[in-house]
Amino acid sequence: MTSKPNAIVAQSGGPTTVINSSACGIIQQAMKSGKIGRVFAAVNGILGVLKEDLFDVSAEKPATIAALKRTPAAAMGSCRYKLKSLEQSKADFNRVLDVFKAHNIHYFFYAGGNDSMDTADKVNKLAADAGYELICMGIPKTVDNDLAYTDHCPGYPSVAKYVATCAMEAGRDTEALYTTDTCTILEVMGRNAGWIAAATGLAHRCEEDAPHLVYMPEAAFSFEKFVNDVNEVLKRLGRVFIVAGEGLKDEKGGYVTADAGAFAKDSFGHVQLGGVADMLKAVIEKEVKIKARVNKLGTNQRSAMHFASLTDVNEAYMCGQMAVKNALKGVNGKMVTLVREKGPILLRQGFGGQEYKCTTGLAELRDVANGEKKVPKEYINDRGNHITKAMKDYLRPLIQGEARITIDKDGLPVFMRFRKKPLKKKLPEYM
Amino acid sequence: MTSKPNAIVAQSGGPTTVINSSACGIIQQAMKSGKIGRVFAAVNGILGVLKEDLFDVSAEKPATIAALKRTPAAAMGSCRYKLKSLEQSKADFNRVLDVFKAHNIHYFFYAGGNDSMDTADKVNKLAADAGYELICMGIPKTVDNDLAYTDHCPGYPSVAKYVATCAMEAGRDTEALYTTDTCTILEVMGRNAGWIAAATGLAHRCEEDAPHLVYMPEAAFSFEKFVNDVNEVLKRLGRVFIVAGEGLKDEKGGYVTADAGAFAKDSFGHVQLGGVADMLKAVIEKEVKIKARVNKLGTNQRSAMHFASLTDVNEAYMCGQMAVKNALKGVNGKMVTLVREKGPILLRQGFGGQEYKCTTGLAELRDVANGEKKVPKEYINDRGNHITKAMKDYLRPLIQGEARITIDKDGLPVFMRFRKKPLKKKLPEYM
Repeated sequence: MTSKPNAIVAQSGGPTTVINSSACGIIQQAMKSGKIGRVFAAVNGILGVLKEDLFDVSAEKPATIAALKRTPAAAMGSCRYKLKSLEQSKADFNRVLDVFKAHNIHYFFYAGGNDSMDTADKVNKLAADAGYELICMGIPKTVDNDLAYTDHCPGYPSVAKYVATCAMEAGRDTEALYTTDTCTILEVMGRNAGWIAAATGLAHRCEEDAPHLVYMPEAAFSFEKFVNDVNEVLKRLGRVFIVAGEGLKDEKGGYVTADAGAFAKDSFGHVQLGGVADMLKAVIEKEVKIKARVNKLGTNQRSAMHFASLTDVNEAYMCGQMAVKNALKGVNGKMVTLVREKGPILLRQGFGGQEYKCTTGLAELRDVANGEKKVPKEYINDRGNHITKAMKDYLRPLIQGEARITIDKDGLPVFMRFRKKPLKKKLPEYM
Repeated sequence: MTSKPNAIVAQSGGPTTVINSSACGIIQQAMKSGKIGRVFAAVNGILGVLKEDLFDVSAEKPATIAALKRTPAAAMGSCRYKLKSLEQSKADFNRVLDVFKAHNIHYFFYAGGNDSMDTADKVNKLAADAGYELICMGIPKTVDNDLAYTDHCPGYPSVAKYVATCAMEAGRDTEALYTTDTCTILEVMGRNAGWIAAATGLAHRCEEDAPHLVYMPEAAFSFEKFVNDVNEVLKRLGRVFIVAGEGLKDEKGGYVTADAGAFAKDSFGHVQLGGVADMLKAVIEKEVKIKARVNKLGTNQRSAMHFASLTDVNEAYMCGQMAVKNALKGVNGKMVTLVREKGPILLRQGFGGQEYKCTTGLAELRDVANGEKKVPKEYINDRGNHITKAMKDYLRPLIQGEARITIDKDGLPVFMRFRKKPLKKKLPEYM
């Protein structure tokens, strides 16, 4: 190579509160390494690579790059474009390599979930076959916390801290107004894994505290048991606060929203539309005959930088840094993982007499791509309607500390935006 | 009176983030006055008075009372029980007076909206007719900000700060993922007044910033105009972030959710159920043919103490204090109001070269009961789809500062709860 090799950073899939914190770690570490030329960013993830829609992120102001650490969502842009097998998406994979070659890109840092790790792994293989020197490193990112080979995923702790706090706060609202608004259902994300729903269970510190019932996709959902659960809590407390993961499934593994049966039909016999919480509300109003309210945080839960976990922000940044450090040591085809209580102590916190140590490790991209981590049985209570102490112990250290954000004269947070001055294209148009 | 007169505090209607801050101001001011015997609290507002379901709040631990200032929702309990006219609810009104007499209560502090001010006013008249010495003071409380005679209502600034921040954050999520999730609709509270929706407009600091469209009940809603608005923003930015107040109305003043017409029918011809955002989502997916997501904060917006306005917490506390101070001076039948830039400076803040001064005033309970303050025309843009600079100038000072909360070893906020040791009943059962 005549000039220093360049690097590219891309963000993929649903944004999180801290995916930008990881990007910040990557960019700052790469820039100070002295071994990398320019650090490019792909606009809207892999779509930007395919379209050769890039910008020189190392040319952005240092203050902008620093502010990235405390800006939610994906500042470079993300996408849901999915590359399939090397055979099915051959043209796409070749194009990725062509773009890398055209811009002297020899380091590929990709933050995402298992589909993204799969893409990075395949790009890596293709480069090896073509004899093109390329190092591909994955950075874990998902609010769902469902990646295997890592203790937890950056993004999860912040959504966990936020939804648990939301359950506490809205729980107090229901507690105050239970004589009319007797039931509240908080719907949270998690189509396949119940980690986010599970996190709210930490807010339940005593019998009075919300949430009283927590339903996760890992525990088969039954309408009969649900109605019994609700009645049991009502009898005891006169109110009920319920958390439901959006992807609840019945004993056959089908989404309960798809076939709610007679339970969720309204008085005209129509099946209620909307999400799982709307359906549970209909069931409660029909079968238990109390008023139910629905809070659906939607994308607000994965972008709540105003109450993010400081531990999460720091660990996300560390993952970005370590991806670069490892890449520069010649490590290739791996995703950075978070490891609890092993190796040198990079982050250390004392709380409640316990100590939490988190460092990083490495996992094969292809292993992560094929893995999935659900909430284990021992984290869910026997009745399938709440979490256990083991889950609380797992979660507690992850949500320590509150990330500081800058507030301006409007009394609102300040987030950065890249200028995104387009890099001059060198290849013909592709898509 | 042989012993010092007692006071009673009650909380009414939908809770807010800071109604407890007002209660804290009342209780602490009453206890240190030396002129009041015991301070009682009604459990669940006027329902607790009717049921003689009271507790001695002045007997709670001082630390519990102090923590009330930073605990969301209504710690004494609230209700939606509505007393009608003196004739229609004669038995109820007489019962209120009987309970007050039985417990030597001569001060009634009632935090609520205009219905509560109406109740307080009527209790006051009944006492006067009966020759019973009673001072009734109202403390403004409503997230809706629709009370007349006060510059703004405690509770509103905190919900405003929170929803504006939520619009900023989820707006960044939409900005990152617009290639698939092109539209997000944030539904906020406000059945009759659009103050909460209007608040999110402050987050729109430049063309890129969410929200791009803000719909308030004060501006007649038209489906045709709505679809045009959405298309116009899409053409310009490639994405659109919409805020909708839950009580949008058409040109005839009917709720748009009640008669969405052909626009909101799904492919089976069913009218979509759910809130206004679900309906707008259906309209967008059918007419604009892009994917739309719905975030519905529900009761989380009115209980978000984790990001409350410090100005709001302090002003709410001040309202409670001033209710007691005025009552002890013999003022009766009034609600404490917040006055901007008049009178002695009790709160002062500098920001952006401007200065905000807020003190308190007094309004007749009966005037407040009959009034309603909507978002004025000059705060809404000509197209009826966003706010004006005047609205931003009104709002900005109210959301300055962030209330500090205590975080425990779990990494979650700590809120107080009263012991609520029941006061011994002296009267026969009523309801």
